[in-house]
Amino acid sequence: MRKVAVVGVGHSNFGVRKDVNIAELTWEAVKEALEDAGLTQKDIDYVPVGSYGFWYEEPLPAVVVTEYCGLVPKGHVHCESACATGSAAVHLAYYRVASGLSDIAMAIGFEKMTEVDTPTAVEFIGRAGSYIWEFENFGMTFPGYYALLATNHMANFGTKEEHMAMVAVKNHYYGARNEKAYLRREIKVEDVLNSRPVAWPIKFFDCCPINDGAAAVILAAEEVAKKITDTPIWIKGVGCAGDTGNIAKRENLFSIRSAQLASQQAYEMAKITPQDVDVAEVHDCFTIAEILAYEDLGFCKKGEGPKLIEEGQTYVGGKIPVNVDGGLKAKGHPIGATGCSMIYELTRQLRQEVEPERQADIKKGIALAHNVGGTGHSCYVTILGRD
Amino acid sequence: MRKVAVVGVGHSNFGVRKDVNIAELTWEAVKEALEDAGLTQKDIDYVPVGSYGFWYEEPLPAVVVTEYCGLVPKGHVHCESACATGSAAVHLAYYRVASGLSDIAMAIGFEKMTEVDTPTAVEFIGRAGSYIWEFENFGMTFPGYYALLATNHMANFGTKEEHMAMVAVKNHYYGARNEKAYLRREIKVEDVLNSRPVAWPIKFFDCCPINDGAAAVILAAEEVAKKITDTPIWIKGVGCAGDTGNIAKRENLFSIRSAQLASQQAYEMAKITPQDVDVAEVHDCFTIAEILAYEDLGFCKKGEGPKLIEEGQTYVGGKIPVNVDGGLKAKGHPIGATGCSMIYELTRQLRQEVEPERQADIKKGIALAHNVGGTGHSCYVTILGRD
Repeated sequence: MRKVAVVGVGHSNFGVRKDVNIAELTWEAVKEALEDAGLTQKDIDYVPVGSYGFWYEEPLPAVVVTEYCGLVPKGHVHCESACATGSAAVHLAYYRVASGLSDIAMAIGFEKMTEVDTPTAVEFIGRAGSYIWEFENFGMTFPGYYALLATNHMANFGTKEEHMAMVAVKNHYYGARNEKAYLRREIKVEDVLNSRPVAWPIKFFDCCPINDGAAAVILAAEEVAKKITDTPIWIKGVGCAGDTGNIAKRENLFSIRSAQLASQQAYEMAKITPQDVDVAEVHDCFTIAEILAYEDLGFCKKGEGPKLIEEGQTYVGGKIPVNVDGGLKAKGHPIGATGCSMIYELTRQLRQEVEPERQADIKKGIALAHNVGGTGHSCYVTILGRD
Repeated sequence: MRKVAVVGVGHSNFGVRKDVNIAELTWEAVKEALEDAGLTQKDIDYVPVGSYGFWYEEPLPAVVVTEYCGLVPKGHVHCESACATGSAAVHLAYYRVASGLSDIAMAIGFEKMTEVDTPTAVEFIGRAGSYIWEFENFGMTFPGYYALLATNHMANFGTKEEHMAMVAVKNHYYGARNEKAYLRREIKVEDVLNSRPVAWPIKFFDCCPINDGAAAVILAAEEVAKKITDTPIWIKGVGCAGDTGNIAKRENLFSIRSAQLASQQAYEMAKITPQDVDVAEVHDCFTIAEILAYEDLGFCKKGEGPKLIEEGQTYVGGKIPVNVDGGLKAKGHPIGATGCSMIYELTRQLRQEVEPERQADIKKGIALAHNVGGTGHSCYVTILGRD
């Protein structure tokens, strides 16, 4: 298999972006990625485009976006894996370059959600569990699903609402220091605990916001990558697993099996252990999800996630800094963009070029992205390495 | 790059399938593909799922389908490239196996369209040109787009309505002999000419029908493939190109540039010429599209497509048999399934196992599939070989 590196990354500002349409929004990320790599559109061979929304007026968003970004007549494909859509785009670009079919590919992820009639966007996301069985019969929506995971974790491991609140506090702390983030202000544990209940124990500040954004990642094969940049960031391992869409069928409700499987695949491929990871991006759609991720990824044992956040080990300077760009919680979660945004952040972390207060200590030169689709219907894990 | 072969194919009956939901429909194809390969779900590493529809009640159809088909916890991704969606799924499976990440992958394509409120399905397809500019401003829909291509071809090359009708007659002739096809009856040139106008010169019998169906293709890496089957059908070449979604910006309206580019890529990779192809599946969404395909793929010179059908050269026994399974025209076009259906047919053609009247003469052992998205917004070409 050919070695493949990230050679350029770009990221729009995440937020309420009524100033741009999907093509203009995406161009912000594509332009930055091309400039970062010192390439032009002509250099790109292939373009996977990730977006979840079927709410756009254009039913072929990949066509509109690639055309506006000057990527005609490059081959493209539109992909979706629920909230892991952005990672799916990165992985497809990776397969294509690793296979030898392309030397350079660009993964694009974008979403515009704030101009969708809000009940509709939220309802559609709610349906993305098991629609007919759980949504129609039991009225389950996403905060409800994650509330089930949270109460199970509480019952089994003594996790407290305060632990979840600490995740929000950390992620807002870093979001306030990330110029691309949406919610750029710090909050306190009390703010979370006193915020209005959404689905107990999940409260308003335990939830990530939906918003608008785009990110782009350029991948290149080894020989080409070395010509493009002095700081290629290598894809060391990838993993991808699926699971039942029906949460009632899960073995337990305090872990995400697809995340465990996908990370095992990625660790094995990269020939590393969780302890080798210097910095991670994990899918904190709700604060409990970040705690589950600590455990499912092996950063600590099952049930010890709350202790990890309580001890501050997932801050910069701790054992394993997590979501030090603000995570979904403070950056916001424009669905298709999130996975590409994670790779953007980790690439810049490994290059040691982020804002100093957010820069993790890079020792082994390894970073990990964990992107969950639905309630674990799919999970994509990507391991990056400086060497 | 690893050599990759088709080792199993499956196909549901195409038609009005109100007897099954999307998962049950897809299982018909998946079951047949697994049996054809002599494999079980456990052997499959990775599953790209192609469907276009955003009209399903389940907004994550890939999750529902993979779970019902027993493919949990395999990694999956949902992909879309308009009417070329099925080929996109095949290509993603191919990249994954060629890269070395998977030994065996299964591409699935499906669509259910007959239970969608008909104006809605047709309107959504209509929007899949350039929605804001051409649909809203000029009222363009798909028959209208292809009527523009047809009238341009007529004006430039003297193509007649009769030539287009001959394509329909051929494809119905073979559809009548394909047990998986939807419209299993022969028609005459007069039937086409006398059918009601849709967008002149396109009449009712020049249009393919939308319907319901699924198809599945299992790919395996060389060493594994040889253990699975004595008749592996190799992927010799692939090509994929995009183009503007705005037909008003095309260089001309008598060819599909993305098809020309994608086929050039595929021929180059396979190291063959168009004259080496024994049998082809082309995207005959409208009869004129098949004539354009003859030319864009190099089976004849530009402008000589009408002569090719007039001389019967695209029947079995002719220079290059095309759509001898009925094509989109007689099989129907369940969007996501079509690309996989093409590979199903060509695999069986190269194995020489189709109904005798439809079996092409296999000389060089080469077959080609051409699958167009939109009006050429994308095109995927796949070349298969017996050796």
